Amino acid sequence: MAGNNDRFVNQIADINADYTKWYTDVCLKSELCDYGPVKGTMVFRPYGYAIWERIQAEADKRFKAHGVQNAYFPMLIPQSFLMREAEHVEGFAPEVATVTHVGNTELGEKLVLRPTSETIIGNMYSKWIDSYRDLPLKLNQWANVVRWEKTTRPFLRTSEFLWQEGHTVFATPEAADADALEMLEVYKDIANNVLALPVLTGRKSEKEKFAGAVATYGMEAMMKDGKSLQSGTTHYLGDNFAKAFDIKFLDKDGTHKYVYQASWGISTRLIGAIIMAHGDERGLCLPPPVAPIQAVIIPIGAAKNPEVDAKSKELFAALEKAGVRVKLDERDQSPGFKFNHWELRGVPVRIELGGRDLAGGVVTACRRDTAEKFTMPIDGSTESVLKLLDEINSNMFKKAEAHTLSHIVRVDKLDEMGAALDGGNFCDAYWCGDRECEDKIKDKFAATSRVMHADQSDAEKHKCVCCGKKAKHRIYFARAY
Amino acid sequence: MAGNNDRFVNQIADINADYTKWYTDVCLKSELCDYGPVKGTMVFRPYGYAIWERIQAEADKRFKAHGVQNAYFPMLIPQSFLMREAEHVEGFAPEVATVTHVGNTELGEKLVLRPTSETIIGNMYSKWIDSYRDLPLKLNQWANVVRWEKTTRPFLRTSEFLWQEGHTVFATPEAADADALEMLEVYKDIANNVLALPVLTGRKSEKEKFAGAVATYGMEAMMKDGKSLQSGTTHYLGDNFAKAFDIKFLDKDGTHKYVYQASWGISTRLIGAIIMAHGDERGLCLPPPVAPIQAVIIPIGAAKNPEVDAKSKELFAALEKAGVRVKLDERDQSPGFKFNHWELRGVPVRIELGGRDLAGGVVTACRRDTAEKFTMPIDGSTESVLKLLDEINSNMFKKAEAHTLSHIVRVDKLDEMGAALDGGNFCDAYWCGDRECEDKIKDKFAATSRVMHADQSDAEKHKCVCCGKKAKHRIYFARAY
Repeated sequence: MAGNNDRFVNQIADINADYTKWYTDVCLKSELCDYGPVKGTMVFRPYGYAIWERIQAEADKRFKAHGVQNAYFPMLIPQSFLMREAEHVEGFAPEVATVTHVGNTELGEKLVLRPTSETIIGNMYSKWIDSYRDLPLKLNQWANVVRWEKTTRPFLRTSEFLWQEGHTVFATPEAADADALEMLEVYKDIANNVLALPVLTGRKSEKEKFAGAVATYGMEAMMKDGKSLQSGTTHYLGDNFAKAFDIKFLDKDGTHKYVYQASWGISTRLIGAIIMAHGDERGLCLPPPVAPIQAVIIPIGAAKNPEVDAKSKELFAALEKAGVRVKLDERDQSPGFKFNHWELRGVPVRIELGGRDLAGGVVTACRRDTAEKFTMPIDGSTESVLKLLDEINSNMFKKAEAHTLSHIVRVDKLDEMGAALDGGNFCDAYWCGDRECEDKIKDKFAATSRVMHADQSDAEKHKCVCCGKKAKHRIYFARAY
Repeated sequence: MAGNNDRFVNQIADINADYTKWYTDVCLKSELCDYGPVKGTMVFRPYGYAIWERIQAEADKRFKAHGVQNAYFPMLIPQSFLMREAEHVEGFAPEVATVTHVGNTELGEKLVLRPTSETIIGNMYSKWIDSYRDLPLKLNQWANVVRWEKTTRPFLRTSEFLWQEGHTVFATPEAADADALEMLEVYKDIANNVLALPVLTGRKSEKEKFAGAVATYGMEAMMKDGKSLQSGTTHYLGDNFAKAFDIKFLDKDGTHKYVYQASWGISTRLIGAIIMAHGDERGLCLPPPVAPIQAVIIPIGAAKNPEVDAKSKELFAALEKAGVRVKLDERDQSPGFKFNHWELRGVPVRIELGGRDLAGGVVTACRRDTAEKFTMPIDGSTESVLKLLDEINSNMFKKAEAHTLSHIVRVDKLDEMGAALDGGNFCDAYWCGDRECEDKIKDKFAATSRVMHADQSDAEKHKCVCCGKKAKHRIYFARAY
């Protein structure tokens, strides 16, 4: 499937000169994805989809440990459902795709392709929930959603994308809000430990919250250009959808009450985060937990050396048995070609195995994250590779964390903000809480508020970075994808 | 989530008196699914979706062993794509849902929701395939598809359903046709060993083949009412889509040639097959490999007997550790209530554990498939349960196979067909191969040709069951879902 000549296909734009083109090149040339025939759509090619499968498996395991069950709800939602929650319809109506016909017949009611499923799930919950015994109810679905976006980019913003959406129901506001916060921690765990991705987590401003939520919590990851990527959100919905869809339960005290809800989602956008937080001038750099291929073995001169051939196959079998996702590249191509090929694709560990290595009882390993090259004894090399994969994951996190921490700048004056942002930084700032200041900052600097800072203790002692009035919040402003 | 009073909810129609209502009752009351708000759509509730997750895992493992990789293609297909393959558009156009608007804006080109993805995947393959080195190419996607059906029933026929669709590409017709036949064997393996479902496999008639295929192979399973359920199909597509989408490769001989393709799919319909092939007057009966709960432990009098409570928890932990999907039902309900509850839901093994059992050093086990009740020593009960689950699976297959074999009737005269079908049988018949005879049989008996018989050796020695002319095929006719 690689196409005709990888030697040329491998060439990607300079990450420092043109980050945007670099991103697109990496997406396409490492065969993560391709453009679909309809503008704004994308195809997940096997290498990209395999990353998503790993993210799904890791997330699904954590959701189930949190007491969540999977279900599946119809993609087609009556248009009228969207109208029931005022903010919700306002937020989503402009970007929903509408089905009007089947064959040549016009439908009686227009249907929309789900942009998210609060409404249709709310409708079902009102049928299913009767009593306090039915609570809490925690369901999740893995699904495709459609949101028609004007400007699209692979993984980051496409008309259709893949995600999971959790929809949980509780008897009290406190329990629902707690669930939104707990799931934010689950997402952070996935980001940190599965994607080697440091994230800032906290509440979003009113302007940036989900249409229909009481509060939205987000996790933001810093990309290598200093822009932020919203990488997951959880919402405390209060009783907004309960009132819109009449979801009530008979409480222990014998009275009927509205339920309180939360919802939360992560999507294939996370693949974009991996690309842009870890990638470098040579292409992708994949964290071992999600790498479809964790180690590639490249025999050197196997055609002329049967021992190299035999040992390569032996090592392949041993690594596979040890649970490593390993590939033996026996193609009739030069070692240099293969090095480039797998570097572009971000394979964490490359193992070279040639006659000289064998004579010394070693193999040569090369780490994708640091480009370090070293030998290791062939005996015990399986354990060495397993250890190396762990080390790479932890090093990738540390590197990204160091980058993030060194690119957060305290900004107290509005006229410092432009330079900070242009320098690839997040702005750690105080803010009065007014929408007007957010709008002004957006107009002036193309930056938005991302999430509240974890430490709000001294916020009220400061002044708003924009209007100079008394501050209410400490918050991050950044340019964002 | 069970709703207020299971004692009444559990009542299902008599399977012998009203099979149709029995089916719907089982679907809804065992909480496998519910109706969606849009006519013809359904919701997969957690218990039903968990069965699908098990089927997915088992199928996906087999596909990957067959050299298939997963990918994901856009759901929205330009309407013009459907037009490119004449038979394909004729087959699907009447039932495709069409997206015309986003927000208030009309789209430039109408888009259809995929009823199947040969066209959009063909479009991508024409971009990706250049040379013989790119072949074979074997991709699969797990996806939702939309086919607007007039008459719908949960799992069997719904406007949206979940499935997998494999799309494979080869250099020769032989290799593509072989893939369709190999995948039919993979499906048969899943049916037999995962779903305990005997199936008849073979080629379909021209009338019953997939719109756009050269040949369709199907697997048909007999339901308890003697009707057939098409449970999976594989298609040899020849170069039909290659020509429609210009999918060519540069062969070793230096010339450009069209590729040859196959496609194959199984869907959530399989859950309907499980319900109708194994269910009985007490409700669902689930094959252990797909049962979300394989064993349920019901403590008897645990509230008054701490030893019962402790031993139940111990057994639960031991079974869980041994990999059994086990549930400990500690609800404050009578044992009789719980027995009904889990019988309706088809849990393969019920374990009762009371003071008397404990005193004798045993537990009482009850098999869902045979209703046999017996004691087994509490020491070693984990191994006994594992063995029992295997035995149940194999017994369920044997039972369904015996039912199928005893309900296939050789029919040589057209006027015998009605009685055979009314008696809940498949008709094993000879047929001239003419569409007219198929149409006549359908008009007269509401039966269709299902698949060719495995033994075609003497077909030409016989006469067509319908017109009396020389036969070409030995084939099954049956009423079908």
